[in-house]
Amino acid sequence: MENIPNAVVKRLPMYYRHLGELRESGVERISSSELSERMNVTASQIRQDLNHFGGFGQQGYGYNVEYLHTIIGNILGLNKIYHVIIIGAGNLGRALANYTNFEKSGFVITGIFDSNPELRGEMIRTVSVSHMDELEMFFEKNKIDIAVLTVPKSAAPDIADRLVKLGVKAFWNFAHVDLKVPEDVVVESVHLSDSLMKISYSLSNLEKEKL
Amino acid sequence: MENIPNAVVKRLPMYYRHLGELRESGVERISSSELSERMNVTASQIRQDLNHFGGFGQQGYGYNVEYLHTIIGNILGLNKIYHVIIIGAGNLGRALANYTNFEKSGFVITGIFDSNPELRGEMIRTVSVSHMDELEMFFEKNKIDIAVLTVPKSAAPDIADRLVKLGVKAFWNFAHVDLKVPEDVVVESVHLSDSLMKISYSLSNLEKEKL
Repeated sequence: MENIPNAVVKRLPMYYRHLGELRESGVERISSSELSERMNVTASQIRQDLNHFGGFGQQGYGYNVEYLHTIIGNILGLNKIYHVIIIGAGNLGRALANYTNFEKSGFVITGIFDSNPELRGEMIRTVSVSHMDELEMFFEKNKIDIAVLTVPKSAAPDIADRLVKLGVKAFWNFAHVDLKVPEDVVVESVHLSDSLMKISYSLSNLEKEKL
Repeated sequence: MENIPNAVVKRLPMYYRHLGELRESGVERISSSELSERMNVTASQIRQDLNHFGGFGQQGYGYNVEYLHTIIGNILGLNKIYHVIIIGAGNLGRALANYTNFEKSGFVITGIFDSNPELRGEMIRTVSVSHMDELEMFFEKNKIDIAVLTVPKSAAPDIADRLVKLGVKAFWNFAHVDLKVPEDVVVESVHLSDSLMKISYSLSNLEKEKL
């Protein structure tokens, strides 16, 4: 099960999501053609992808949903607990802190920080907001795996440097800037404007096709 | 300038963002090697990409930042105004409504809708929240290009169907479900959990490499 191609890895969260939904609704087995219809991916693509995890899609029997969901979850590292802090208690930080589904997947929010002293002590779900000044002290007592950055882009690079020094190994970056971090630090950026531009590009091209 | 490969199109928002920052800070010309260092993309990749827009990167002179920013903006459809509604006035909907940068790029938020009657009339920045019951009436008076869905996944498919019937041609979908829409309707989904799983996958693999 080593060396899963990158293109397949990219699709694993999607498989995991659909298999989780099937599992929740009590489905035990599913064929590649049923999965294909559900996921809008060709059945042969699905068979190729899932072959990387051993040939447990027997002809006529389909895939074992629970087994596949578990094994893909393990590959995605979801069989562990990750301690997460959110930097920036604005609307986006709050939205993320309130997604209980993240916690169900093992991402536990352990701290929320903001530079606004007026927010100190405010409870967001089960976590109280700390001031940015308390960051270093917080790390003396807590081991943090992932830092979520929901701060303005002007503040993000310095905060990232500070967190790297404190030992953070992964960033979920919502600030609209590309972070420069050491090679062994993971950065997953969600650039919302880039995503919105894909829409305007597609809409423009639809219009051109009509002309 | 027809037929820009998909792989290049995907990188255009990133070029647009960096060129915009350079333009704001008064930079008039930039070489592919300077852009390369800034964007973490090889210089030869940059030259190949930008060649699609005509050969205006003269040896020794570099690219004209303003021209390139404008032309890429046009290709991305940013030379137009898009009327946007947000469905779901929770934290995420509010966060998106409060990003004034979207408006600067031509995405104007014209309405915000929520199924909670208590939110009716609440002002979020310059727009007051309407009830979902008012959706059809709203469309009689307003032409909407893009609907942003920040609703629970159980509600999203029905709302999307309703909006397609009202003529919406593009969805920015934050609900954790793949929408099924007619072929000429654009869907850009931001699946935040999928993004988070890329982090747990990378963290697990970093750990394995260390063993």
